[in-house]
Amino acid sequence: MAEQPRLADNTDDLAQQFRETRLLTEALVSSLSDADASLQSMDDTSPAKWHLAHTTWFWETFLLRDHLPGYCLFDERWPFLFNSYYEAEGERVARGRRGMLSRPSLDEARDYRTHVTLAMEPLLARSDCADLIALGIAHEQQHQELLLTDMKHGLFQNPLGSEMFAGAPPPPSGADADNADWWEHPGGVAQAGHDGSTFAFDNEGPRHRVLLQPFALARRLVTNGEWLAFMADGGYSTSSLWLSDGWSWVQAHEVTAPLYWQAGEAGWTQFTHSGWQEMEAARPVTHISYYEADAFASWAGKRLPTEFEWEAVAQRQGADAAFAGHQLDIAASPLPVGGTDLFGDCWQWTRSAYLPYPRFHPVAGAIGEYNGKFMSGQFVLRGASCATPRGHSRTSYRNFFYPHQRWQFTGLRLAMDL
Amino acid sequence: MAEQPRLADNTDDLAQQFRETRLLTEALVSSLSDADASLQSMDDTSPAKWHLAHTTWFWETFLLRDHLPGYCLFDERWPFLFNSYYEAEGERVARGRRGMLSRPSLDEARDYRTHVTLAMEPLLARSDCADLIALGIAHEQQHQELLLTDMKHGLFQNPLGSEMFAGAPPPPSGADADNADWWEHPGGVAQAGHDGSTFAFDNEGPRHRVLLQPFALARRLVTNGEWLAFMADGGYSTSSLWLSDGWSWVQAHEVTAPLYWQAGEAGWTQFTHSGWQEMEAARPVTHISYYEADAFASWAGKRLPTEFEWEAVAQRQGADAAFAGHQLDIAASPLPVGGTDLFGDCWQWTRSAYLPYPRFHPVAGAIGEYNGKFMSGQFVLRGASCATPRGHSRTSYRNFFYPHQRWQFTGLRLAMDL
Amino acid sequence: MAEQPRLADNTDDLAQQFRETRLLTEALVSSLSDADASLQSMDDTSPAKWHLAHTTWFWETFLLRDHLPGYCLFDERWPFLFNSYYEAEGERVARGRRGMLSRPSLDEARDYRTHVTLAMEPLLARSDCADLIALGIAHEQQHQELLLTDMKHGLFQNPLGSEMFAGAPPPPSGADADNADWWEHPGGVAQAGHDGSTFAFDNEGPRHRVLLQPFALARRLVTNGEWLAFMADGGYSTSSLWLSDGWSWVQAHEVTAPLYWQAGEAGWTQFTHSGWQEMEAARPVTHISYYEADAFASWAGKRLPTEFEWEAVAQRQGADAAFAGHQLDIAASPLPVGGTDLFGDCWQWTRSAYLPYPRFHPVAGAIGEYNGKFMSGQFVLRGASCATPRGHSRTSYRNFFYPHQRWQFTGLRLAMDL
Amino acid sequence: MAEQPRLADNTDDLAQQFRETRLLTEALVSSLSDADASLQSMDDTSPAKWHLAHTTWFWETFLLRDHLPGYCLFDERWPFLFNSYYEAEGERVARGRRGMLSRPSLDEARDYRTHVTLAMEPLLARSDCADLIALGIAHEQQHQELLLTDMKHGLFQNPLGSEMFAGAPPPPSGADADNADWWEHPGGVAQAGHDGSTFAFDNEGPRHRVLLQPFALARRLVTNGEWLAFMADGGYSTSSLWLSDGWSWVQAHEVTAPLYWQAGEAGWTQFTHSGWQEMEAARPVTHISYYEADAFASWAGKRLPTEFEWEAVAQRQGADAAFAGHQLDIAASPLPVGGTDLFGDCWQWTRSAYLPYPRFHPVAGAIGEYNGKFMSGQFVLRGASCATPRGHSRTSYRNFFYPHQRWQFTGLRLAMDL
Repeated sequence: MAEQPRLADNTDDLAQQFRETRLLTEALVSSLSDADASLQSMDDTSPAKWHLAHTTWFWETFLLRDHLPGYCLFDERWPFLFNSYYEAEGERVARGRRGMLSRPSLDEARDYRTHVTLAMEPLLARSDCADLIALGIAHEQQHQELLLTDMKHGLFQNPLGSEMFAGAPPPPSGADADNADWWEHPGGVAQAGHDGSTFAFDNEGPRHRVLLQPFALARRLVTNGEWLAFMADGGYSTSSLWLSDGWSWVQAHEVTAPLYWQAGEAGWTQFTHSGWQEMEAARPVTHISYYEADAFASWAGKRLPTEFEWEAVAQRQGADAAFAGHQLDIAASPLPVGGTDLFGDCWQWTRSAYLPYPRFHPVAGAIGEYNGKFMSGQFVLRGASCATPRGHSRTSYRNFFYPHQRWQFTGLRLAMDL
Repeated sequence: MAEQPRLADNTDDLAQQFRETRLLTEALVSSLSDADASLQSMDDTSPAKWHLAHTTWFWETFLLRDHLPGYCLFDERWPFLFNSYYEAEGERVARGRRGMLSRPSLDEARDYRTHVTLAMEPLLARSDCADLIALGIAHEQQHQELLLTDMKHGLFQNPLGSEMFAGAPPPPSGADADNADWWEHPGGVAQAGHDGSTFAFDNEGPRHRVLLQPFALARRLVTNGEWLAFMADGGYSTSSLWLSDGWSWVQAHEVTAPLYWQAGEAGWTQFTHSGWQEMEAARPVTHISYYEADAFASWAGKRLPTEFEWEAVAQRQGADAAFAGHQLDIAASPLPVGGTDLFGDCWQWTRSAYLPYPRFHPVAGAIGEYNGKFMSGQFVLRGASCATPRGHSRTSYRNFFYPHQRWQFTGLRLAMDL
Repeated sequence: MAEQPRLADNTDDLAQQFRETRLLTEALVSSLSDADASLQSMDDTSPAKWHLAHTTWFWETFLLRDHLPGYCLFDERWPFLFNSYYEAEGERVARGRRGMLSRPSLDEARDYRTHVTLAMEPLLARSDCADLIALGIAHEQQHQELLLTDMKHGLFQNPLGSEMFAGAPPPPSGADADNADWWEHPGGVAQAGHDGSTFAFDNEGPRHRVLLQPFALARRLVTNGEWLAFMADGGYSTSSLWLSDGWSWVQAHEVTAPLYWQAGEAGWTQFTHSGWQEMEAARPVTHISYYEADAFASWAGKRLPTEFEWEAVAQRQGADAAFAGHQLDIAASPLPVGGTDLFGDCWQWTRSAYLPYPRFHPVAGAIGEYNGKFMSGQFVLRGASCATPRGHSRTSYRNFFYPHQRWQFTGLRLAMDL
Repeated sequence: MAEQPRLADNTDDLAQQFRETRLLTEALVSSLSDADASLQSMDDTSPAKWHLAHTTWFWETFLLRDHLPGYCLFDERWPFLFNSYYEAEGERVARGRRGMLSRPSLDEARDYRTHVTLAMEPLLARSDCADLIALGIAHEQQHQELLLTDMKHGLFQNPLGSEMFAGAPPPPSGADADNADWWEHPGGVAQAGHDGSTFAFDNEGPRHRVLLQPFALARRLVTNGEWLAFMADGGYSTSSLWLSDGWSWVQAHEVTAPLYWQAGEAGWTQFTHSGWQEMEAARPVTHISYYEADAFASWAGKRLPTEFEWEAVAQRQGADAAFAGHQLDIAASPLPVGGTDLFGDCWQWTRSAYLPYPRFHPVAGAIGEYNGKFMSGQFVLRGASCATPRGHSRTSYRNFFYPHQRWQFTGLRLAMDL
């Protein structure tokens, strides 16, 4: 990631990145009403307004309150509303009740943002704050993606098929059908994890050696068309393809297709940020659970890659450069657009459980709750999706979700032993 | 109810009542944002916006669609959204998912109202529609009260203690402490139910004879102060005072006070449409379940009245006149204000289950689903609350709720045997 | 009930009735293994062993402990196990966990019974105990019926279709097809409730006057054949026939037939105490919920009777005599056999909610919890079933269950207005 | 494991092992009544009787039915009852309803066992069946341990504190307090997994190389006394020590101590197979969840080992010899007795998720469902407990449970980085 300077050494760039990140978040909600922005469709998702305010609370708490002498809270009652899960920061609104916050209004949340963004200016030049600012930017970028996927899920509940961005192109992009072969890797000892010269989350390190067997990784993602073949072959009703928990999940929820798919008279349609659209067979399949990804791989006679296999290939391919021009970008359009590569289409399930790397230790204090405490029961996803902000992707990035979750842009890339 | 002419004979009055009712509903939500109006806090409640649109759907379906030749639906997709429970009118949004309707917006719901209100004009003069129009007015009045109580419950969820009407007087009014004795009744055969000369719901008839034992009914409602005495005496922790289902309910939900009460450093406060207010001991207790009402009566060595005892006293007291000037009224303030009598403070739990009167038959068609199909598991409440619209109360009126519900303005009036 | 002397005046008869009741309970479980007798299939039911011990606990607690000087408890830990719901008697095993009591064993429960039965002898002659003894007998008779219906439900869970009484005749008896007309009643003031000269539960009084409209009551019960016609006419899928709560229940549980019915290749079969048997169309339908009974009556263009209509007819018919020879009887067979009349086939749902009669007051102490605290949410059933012990039936008897429950022998008798 | 010959090469030894395994299972239930043996206390556990029959079904299905010409099923209806989770073998009783099987009786289950055990004789000498027989033995040994832990949980529900083995010594044994230091390991490439010369489950292979960092593994297990120190220091109420899912679990279930602990007036007691016993501080702590193990390690400033760290140390220590003389053994006592080492006290949570080894493939058919389909959401435990049958332990053995489960004999051994 040579194009990304060490953030703490260049506060000018950091300040600019801070301002652009703040603006991008606001651009994402520009078409939403207060009612849209207050919608919470399930416990896993949060209202857009809450994302606006929570990311602001993060700056107010860990930067302004802790590092700007004399700063007064915008509203003393709001930390209770907008703390997400930091036990060290005290009590908070129950996660599943965030949709009850019709007040403060969307406009008040915007005022809160402006107030905090401006108050941050004196800190942007302070090198002792640079690491925390870099973390805050990364944090807000994560919530940009969540805001988009949560809002998609919220609008999906509406029988009217509401849209978030009228006229936007359908994400993600089509796969290159001529590119359907494999990257081969001879195995052996490889380096995994972040090398420490630029910003990364704590869970991406420490960098360490891993031992790989010879393997191959598909050059492209599994497509909607391939998924239809899986479905046509009885994929969702063949118990032998499924993990035991996956089979229970399929039966309990009567799952017969990816999330957001709907069978119509004229074929399958997909719910997108631009409303209901015709499904295109050549595009990567998205919104599938780990259980579905694993069952598909079994059906295909292949398997999911480990996170280290994925990373080893990504390092070799110099993949970071590949996604320039994709993803969320304030300088371009705030709409999700797609790419065709390791990054930028969808997050890719790996068969690796989300666990600590050797010698990993969370930092002390509330910030230490950022990643480490989630290390049970989840699987790692690698890459980045069409909803991931530009500059937020890395070869070492570890996203993680529970195996039944699929409201993110989740897809799969096959692997096999050599 | 001599002051109320038979509606079907006087279409001028009916038309005027129609227009005022429509306006009052809109006045009730004048201070709400779209986000406020989209809030659904539990399965029992509905968003204010939904009430606005559902009452409009009722007019559009049963009057305009069925009786105005050539009428086109405002939006063909909306009946699915705004049908409440009429099976005969087809599928509909699940009750607990009404809060997902961020769209249509509050403004669109208002446009829908205006469109339908104006479209109704040709029908207002037609005598063949008068009975249905009277029913539609009564229906919308019921939803005015529900809108207020549902919104109260919604705003209550907000840790900020949001208000619906700033500066409104606290409902309901104080009880007359000098009036604490009893109305006595010698028993015998009495007439119960509506006499048919004016509008009433089907469940209020047929009028029939009932046999009463000598009894007494309290001249005033149980007050907050008396409820505090019950609490201080261990009312909520003395199993022998409670019905078995009530005791299970108290334990499962850890109930220790009426809904909307909160113990603070300076005494008890109550959540109201105007936010948190100091509790006044002389006011009638409200927001109690049947279980609580019954336990209190046991503690007091008294009992709840039957619905027929209540009605017999109300007939004798000429109670209808007593509540002139109270309740919701577009000509006055849209705010709930209180009264001191049988009507206008709070609904009063009776010990009568909600069951059909002798020879009751629902009418045919969807309208027949209005009342009859709810006749199991609920108890009758009599009177009217501070949130009941003026003109909507009757001596024969039968409100009904499940014994655990308490988000309505529910209170109690004691009775005893003579 | 002139044939039944006032129990408290004739301690010889009472003593004999006590001994026979104790023996009958034991006879009912003679074919059960310890594992059978420990089975609890849902929260509503209890293991047979628990019934054996609970009825014994009742004698030990309210008679021996309270009235026999120097009596020592059989085991001091057992009251915790075998108290049912008497809050005044302290903590107890959670209702849904009675199936966890693999110990004490069935043999130990029998020893407990023998010990307590013998210890009761000195009290049987004491006139000051006669009222409590009569209550204890009635209590144990109630549990005899519950033991049979609970055990039926337990064995029904077994895919092997286990039997409880091999070779028993199928209950209940066939209806007299020639007897399909109506008893007519002119209405007017009638007396209802127990007259007090013999034993009755507290909830059967006080005797009081009720006002009846002219009505007719069917001379026979609705049959399986008639129920099949209801099913064939779409009864279970026609929402307009159902109460709202009933329709929710039908859909949530996918109900399409009475409990214990199973469609086979050669027609319908029914699970009975003697295993799976062919369904006979002429027999009374049983194991239906209130919701089903009410929907059937709607479909038939009739209604359910009130409990007072039922009682008025039963008084006129001198119904008490009619059931001589039916029901559980230690002198005859311990197997349920059927009758054809008001008593002895199945309990009959009425449209009356289970509520207190005028001037009803529970007695003080734990015994006062017997009936009164259940007076919300349930409906009254009248008559008696093939599993009701002989001598336990009365014209004034009020059985009560929740409207969704149907594991008892519940059926229906139609009524209509005249 | 040099003492264990390759099973398929020595059918005499295998036959003997088969017979002893069958006898041991029966010995374990010798003190149980039919009611005891029918008890199911939660969905995770099964009745003892079910274990007796299910292990027999395994032999009948995969050996007798598939390999013994002319064999007739003992009862054609029983496979539906006693199949556990093999989808390929058809429908079966829902897992949570196994406690409803009061019939067949315990005696009938024993007859089934005898019948199948004898019918197996002709197959015991057939070398083509040897691999399946070895699997069946291992399968039955697993169920021996489950039978013991499930029965413990069942008897624990009984307020009487029932015992399974009167007079048995309390498991597991005391730890050697003088042995509280560490085994150190320099890291590097190690071999993991089974080497294939003797029986092992499919999930223990393929054998492969793993890369280890320098680390140390505690020479002894964490003790009850150490756990008390953790509790005294607020371990269960300090959110920062816990994984996020763990903290939710602690709060939802109000966990304040290991399972089976109870605070009494004279100190802590523990429920054991021999009833309630005084807790001994020097013994290894057992019956803890992964969440608790992880929180304890955080509190101690250490961590849990990975499964490969554990295995590397066990290989070095020649650990297999260490557990001679411990564990379940038909030749000795059928009671669980304890050991002090890597095997024989309790299963030890590792921080490794239960995932497939490189190039793992389940075998085809129903047997392939044995292990592979459970590879999501669970953690690996290593070692063996006091309830593990002798001969069932291996250095490569991988046990697995969900992180909240703790009814097995689960404990922990600390690790740290060097």
